[in-house]
Amino acid sequence: MAFEFKAVRRVEFSETDMAGIVHYSNFFRYMETAEHGFFRSLGHSVVMDQFDPPLGWPRVRAECEYRQPLRFEDEVEIHLLVSDKKSKSLSYIFKFRKLNGAAPVEVARGSLTVVCITKQADGKFSSSNIPQAFADQIQIAPAELLS
Amino acid sequence: MAFEFKAVRRVEFSETDMAGIVHYSNFFRYMETAEHGFFRSLGHSVVMDQFDPPLGWPRVRAECEYRQPLRFEDEVEIHLLVSDKKSKSLSYIFKFRKLNGAAPVEVARGSLTVVCITKQADGKFSSSNIPQAFADQIQIAPAELLS
Amino acid sequence: MAFEFKAVRRVEFSETDMAGIVHYSNFFRYMETAEHGFFRSLGHSVVMDQFDPPLGWPRVRAECEYRQPLRFEDEVEIHLLVSDKKSKSLSYIFKFRKLNGAAPVEVARGSLTVVCITKQADGKFSSSNIPQAFADQIQIAPAELLS
Amino acid sequence: MAFEFKAVRRVEFSETDMAGIVHYSNFFRYMETAEHGFFRSLGHSVVMDQFDPPLGWPRVRAECEYRQPLRFEDEVEIHLLVSDKKSKSLSYIFKFRKLNGAAPVEVARGSLTVVCITKQADGKFSSSNIPQAFADQIQIAPAELLS
Repeated sequence: MAFEFKAVRRVEFSETDMAGIVHYSNFFRYMETAEHGFFRSLGHSVVMDQFDPPLGWPRVRAECEYRQPLRFEDEVEIHLLVSDKKSKSLSYIFKFRKLNGAAPVEVARGSLTVVCITKQADGKFSSSNIPQAFADQIQIAPAELLS
Repeated sequence: MAFEFKAVRRVEFSETDMAGIVHYSNFFRYMETAEHGFFRSLGHSVVMDQFDPPLGWPRVRAECEYRQPLRFEDEVEIHLLVSDKKSKSLSYIFKFRKLNGAAPVEVARGSLTVVCITKQADGKFSSSNIPQAFADQIQIAPAELLS
Repeated sequence: MAFEFKAVRRVEFSETDMAGIVHYSNFFRYMETAEHGFFRSLGHSVVMDQFDPPLGWPRVRAECEYRQPLRFEDEVEIHLLVSDKKSKSLSYIFKFRKLNGAAPVEVARGSLTVVCITKQADGKFSSSNIPQAFADQIQIAPAELLS
Repeated sequence: MAFEFKAVRRVEFSETDMAGIVHYSNFFRYMETAEHGFFRSLGHSVVMDQFDPPLGWPRVRAECEYRQPLRFEDEVEIHLLVSDKKSKSLSYIFKFRKLNGAAPVEVARGSLTVVCITKQADGKFSSSNIPQAFADQIQIAPAELLS
């Protein structure tokens, strides 16, 4: 049973803005890097085309707290932890650690709640139970890791 | 005294993802559209180079709740409301309304807390009081609008 | 018969990079703003779902020459001109003019070649003739405008 | 003397668009990944703050030809080759190869011309000679690799 995943990225030039730091919206892209790596680590893609209709994972809530900026070429670890698991949704927290300073330091913390959906013929989404085989692979992280 | 601003955008193709909807990170870009329009409506740019050292407005917290997806060429109104005002920080909420359906519908709601900072010679940020003349232009929105 | 379209954008903060200017990749997003506005001006969306299978317009070539940078809050006009029209493809040039200086100045020039395709059941694209009714609305711009 | 660099990326969800493929503007971000990796491989950052005034490398021309689409989770190699070297500018070509198919296949080819500049006190750019120590590390790739 898995409850965490770590991804590492190097900040790209195109992710910075004129303030010289990573644009705050990109932290939400970084969260996805870890989320989709977590899925792959369990043998899945977030695009679940093997189901009919296909399953998807839209977000219902996203949040980020920023403590220190990230800059071009910084190395950042995105540490995903499963914080909640329901029949139709998952929640994660994300600890962003800058790795290239004197000591690793947490620069931001994010969270995400996603729901499992099927895409109907008319393009609309309807919520769906998480496939059992996938749900069985996942558990909530220990409380001490989530604090 | 101002407490709100409305911006309207049309969803661009490049803002969608393979799920056929606006990527969730782009709602945070949309929030900035309204925030910077709010500043301009008061005669200011968010880049306050007239001060020495220049002032900036990095984010310390960002959040969004998603109710319905936005799709290519949807028209979306981003309604900024000032929800808090302190000596060194401002908070906003954002109501996203899709305008091109049968009736306008709120598809998402966001919030942002930003701090006023000066950029030091070594590139580091330090928090700063909001310039008085600017602070005097802004007030918290009435409670009934914030709910 | 139409051969041009003009769109105007104001440069967003999130489109700048740490060099303080619009990231060069965003000029390609700006081109699409004008391209899709051109389609809408003729009563069409670039997403042609009314056909079965749906038609799409992927790019086969894109190019941009940069003369002067664009900065935050600059107003830029993107002037699309049809430079070629074939049975299955269209080519455009784009003149980027900064409007908020002493006099409008061309800051960049781009070009795009797009092909009309249908999406097959297996997800692959195959080229398709441009629908006649749409092709009949479009003509190549006069040579003096293209230079 | 160096004339090439290879970077590998996995396509991210946020890089796709509603057509289900990588948005064409992102190939220009991918080129930068290889360009900046090339600089780092020679012990440099593209942000040359060790000089006074600092040196930068804005683009004067960018181009890409698209042959096959890239999709979510595809692995793509971006192969940078130095195609020209002048006193104040460098040109590169980029071969994009999709690695996760039956056999590696070139899906796109790009090119970039960048100039070395200094940023003046008023924020304007003026072209500058490439620092000799850096220029001495770089040579044009063999003709057979550039074809």
